[in-house]
Amino acid sequence: MLLAMSRIDRRLEELGIVLPVLAAPTASYIRACAAGRLVFAAGHDPIDAQGVLQRGVIGADVTTEAARRHAELTGLQLLAALRQHLDDLDRVTRVVKLFGLLRTAPGFAGHERVMDGCSDLIERVFGPAGRHARTAGGVFSLYGGMTIEIEAVIEVA
Amino acid sequence: MLLAMSRIDRRLEELGIVLPVLAAPTASYIRACAAGRLVFAAGHDPIDAQGVLQRGVIGADVTTEAARRHAELTGLQLLAALRQHLDDLDRVTRVVKLFGLLRTAPGFAGHERVMDGCSDLIERVFGPAGRHARTAGGVFSLYGGMTIEIEAVIEVA
Amino acid sequence: MLLAMSRIDRRLEELGIVLPVLAAPTASYIRACAAGRLVFAAGHDPIDAQGVLQRGVIGADVTTEAARRHAELTGLQLLAALRQHLDDLDRVTRVVKLFGLLRTAPGFAGHERVMDGCSDLIERVFGPAGRHARTAGGVFSLYGGMTIEIEAVIEVA
Repeated sequence: MLLAMSRIDRRLEELGIVLPVLAAPTASYIRACAAGRLVFAAGHDPIDAQGVLQRGVIGADVTTEAARRHAELTGLQLLAALRQHLDDLDRVTRVVKLFGLLRTAPGFAGHERVMDGCSDLIERVFGPAGRHARTAGGVFSLYGGMTIEIEAVIEVA
Repeated sequence: MLLAMSRIDRRLEELGIVLPVLAAPTASYIRACAAGRLVFAAGHDPIDAQGVLQRGVIGADVTTEAARRHAELTGLQLLAALRQHLDDLDRVTRVVKLFGLLRTAPGFAGHERVMDGCSDLIERVFGPAGRHARTAGGVFSLYGGMTIEIEAVIEVA
Repeated sequence: MLLAMSRIDRRLEELGIVLPVLAAPTASYIRACAAGRLVFAAGHDPIDAQGVLQRGVIGADVTTEAARRHAELTGLQLLAALRQHLDDLDRVTRVVKLFGLLRTAPGFAGHERVMDGCSDLIERVFGPAGRHARTAGGVFSLYGGMTIEIEAVIEVA
């Protein structure tokens, strides 16, 4: 018997996206928690394909374009966490909201350009169901000195 | 046939409040996204009646009282976004939570006074249904150098 | 007639935890607001048993271990606010998410260790129903100069 591939997994394949293998959380929290049809995903981190956490200060030693790529890496971590939590990403009916914390230099003002790295990925993967509300602020410090952290609220079937 | 005016629109008129015309988002997000009976509104900005984004650092070049007025301007943007999303503000059964990011000087401690600019507006408009939970923090930078950004969770009928 | 003690109140007693008496909010917000089966708790503060707000900058004049204790104090405030809101903590079916704002020195990177002070408390009290998603960022300033502020999303029966 042939097992039909999930629609979103097929979409990821078309886009050439391989979701990362997740490390276990190193502290007292879980990656995602459901309440009714909402899933609240924890703040996720910019970890590259080699498992390296991206560190630095956006607008100082990290450029806006590099930070945009970090936001995309964070989006991949979020997608991997959601697939782990839901088993099947086809259960996502809507990505509702992202909240991004960017570790920035004082005068930095390009938060939207950076966050689009994650938002555009989400929309490429889910289409109209990936269009979401969003908030972003420039924080003073983040765990491990990383550049960005993004959490998400997702509606599921 | 006379069309009855919405209760909240009548209330806005009584209070002399004219909701602003919204600009289209300039990045990859939407102003509000619903999931069941909850609406998650994106972080909104302090834009005045002339369409000017209010910039600066609260506690440095922006006073607490000016920032309080910026929080109120942000509340007007949130209300306009909600009316656009819901068509009719009478559908709001509860404003559940506000989350405010204030761009401040390091020693600033007057976050509550500033946020009340938005909270008091919301309560004047919705009455008891406008009484909400709230979180506020002083961030290091915000998009475009603006002074404040506020997101909201709303329950609707 | 003997009135059965609530399961969670009994658990608090076993753990030797006495929930603090809450002060009334000093600004235009409420401590918790419900929408369906979700309760959104406002950002709460690190107030000790004597009612003193814990002030300072984590990583500068406040050590990581002291801040961890402040996170625990904040957790106690959250629990007291929930009990006030729900009447009975047995109604909690899941602590879904915490969002922590830490007032830190620029290079600080120990956010997870600090937040565990609150997360571990929540899990000791609620067991598996206390395992939650989490986000934390290092902010530049907080109300009253306090060290930490934590909000929560809770699912109730």
